[in-house]
Amino acid sequence: VSEHELIRRIRALLGDAGGAASGVVLGPGDDCAVLAPAPGRELLLTTDAAIEGVHFDLAWMSAEEAGARAMAANLSDIAAMAGRPRWATLALGLPARPASETAEVALAIVRGAAREAAAHGARLVGGNLARSPAGISITIALAGDVEAGRAVHRSGARAGDEILVTGEPGLARGGLLALQRGMASDAAVAPLVARFRAPRPRIDEAIFLREIGARAMIDLSDGLAGDLAHLAAESGLAAEIDRDALPVPPPLAAFAARIGFDARAIVLEGGEDYELLAAAPPGTVAAQAAAFERRFGAPLSRIGRFADGAGIFFAGGSPIAGVGFDHFRP
Amino acid sequence: VSEHELIRRIRALLGDAGGAASGVVLGPGDDCAVLAPAPGRELLLTTDAAIEGVHFDLAWMSAEEAGARAMAANLSDIAAMAGRPRWATLALGLPARPASETAEVALAIVRGAAREAAAHGARLVGGNLARSPAGISITIALAGDVEAGRAVHRSGARAGDEILVTGEPGLARGGLLALQRGMASDAAVAPLVARFRAPRPRIDEAIFLREIGARAMIDLSDGLAGDLAHLAAESGLAAEIDRDALPVPPPLAAFAARIGFDARAIVLEGGEDYELLAAAPPGTVAAQAAAFERRFGAPLSRIGRFADGAGIFFAGGSPIAGVGFDHFRP
Repeated sequence: VSEHELIRRIRALLGDAGGAASGVVLGPGDDCAVLAPAPGRELLLTTDAAIEGVHFDLAWMSAEEAGARAMAANLSDIAAMAGRPRWATLALGLPARPASETAEVALAIVRGAAREAAAHGARLVGGNLARSPAGISITIALAGDVEAGRAVHRSGARAGDEILVTGEPGLARGGLLALQRGMASDAAVAPLVARFRAPRPRIDEAIFLREIGARAMIDLSDGLAGDLAHLAAESGLAAEIDRDALPVPPPLAAFAARIGFDARAIVLEGGEDYELLAAAPPGTVAAQAAAFERRFGAPLSRIGRFADGAGIFFAGGSPIAGVGFDHFRP
Repeated sequence: VSEHELIRRIRALLGDAGGAASGVVLGPGDDCAVLAPAPGRELLLTTDAAIEGVHFDLAWMSAEEAGARAMAANLSDIAAMAGRPRWATLALGLPARPASETAEVALAIVRGAAREAAAHGARLVGGNLARSPAGISITIALAGDVEAGRAVHRSGARAGDEILVTGEPGLARGGLLALQRGMASDAAVAPLVARFRAPRPRIDEAIFLREIGARAMIDLSDGLAGDLAHLAAESGLAAEIDRDALPVPPPLAAFAARIGFDARAIVLEGGEDYELLAAAPPGTVAAQAAAFERRFGAPLSRIGRFADGAGIFFAGGSPIAGVGFDHFRP
């Protein structure tokens, strides 16, 4: 399969990416996509890469899931600003495996990415193919939009704000630990593995959180503790976690006990859940958690508070060190 | 050097990417950049990757040049639509070399990319760092804008249009051939090597071409013959090249003779010049080449014509086969 034949098949798969509300004036196939921004809205722009052997392994998920997951990571960055995802490009690095296998994998990745984008109102409008000397790399850039002046930044938390988290962070990390232990077909870990393979970006949830008063927000990609450290640092504050308030879903508690891990450590350290972490005025969770759960079928938890100072701590005092995933840690 | 320390240094290098006319509401450091699109203009979106060992080799250029060159490839895609580049993201894949070397290389790449963007009125507003299992990868996404309805597509050529090319395509390919032969310090090939290391995207030139009637355009990345084949195919036409009309600058002619190559084959096959190839009504070059050369210090050449049919041919008849760089050709 030649590069041009593969591009032809990808274009056939994507169609013209247009449609009434898409804002796509010209879709894939030219030097650039041409897009019509909505008047009065600001543009959001983000990029995120998924690299085989670093972020994913095709022994643990299908190529289509890998493509969808790479898109979900980008969608989640738009969510973290309370925006709406609109238009994505996908740059694919492909190793020189047998040509037919390479083409199948490439098409499946694009199909997964396009499906995940469409499920959240966005379109895949362009991309690039290149040979990669090692594994597959999937690098997506995503443009979204937001009402002018309404993007939620990392820096907006105030001392006294409570720390909110959506859903059940740690599930994806539990799923990864289960896959690493060869437990893919074990029914007890199915909810964990499913979350690792197919995390769900919280687009509507983010807008809801902004409407109920969230004034700083980040999505959980490096792990709860590490991402909380970013939020605290950007807001110039300390963060204090109530360890007992961390949500620990029963399947994760049972799995952690089984492998001899502390379930709350998994919740704190596990990345790639794409849940949202936010700061909001005291009392927000007490007032809104029931409405959130009714609307989105997921819990909204208050897990601590922001305070003057710097760093992140457990309530009572001990600092939490070495938090977050570091690509270059030896 | 930890990932967070490297990110801190990159952010210090980029600053807030803002400024009066930049349209940057929020620069690097949050989940997304926030940008203010100009009213009444359409958005252009493109992505392009440069992979060590495939697109560049640090034995042949500095890391800063590699970063600038990766940005130039993206700037050139905006030029090919007659747009203005505005905002870029850069996703960097870095192998686990010694930490200090990795940090220096990463900073130099970002510095080169940011400098090249700024030289053409664009800003680097965000990015991503990840570990790469093999060499360095630089994946840029670039957003630009254009007056609504004024983007020049690949599909706009008409039968009888003449084929225009800017500058001196083939120089970059000559430079690559010289580097592969260990001739980097040979003064006779300096103009070729310089063009390979630092190609110049033709932003203002593209807008000039549109204003004088260019109605289909592409930038030369795969090679003149291959990119002309794209332009012809997207316009549903055949293209006929006047072999004798191909511009062959003296340093390229001398170098080709020295290594026993046909200079015109280098012009036809060589990619990565980022010159522009366009279709315009007959007589355009005769009327405008002098003004183009005065304004931009580069020739504008008429190298053939579009005609009914399909494929690309030399005037007189013989088809040109197997054109263009293919990443997956065995």
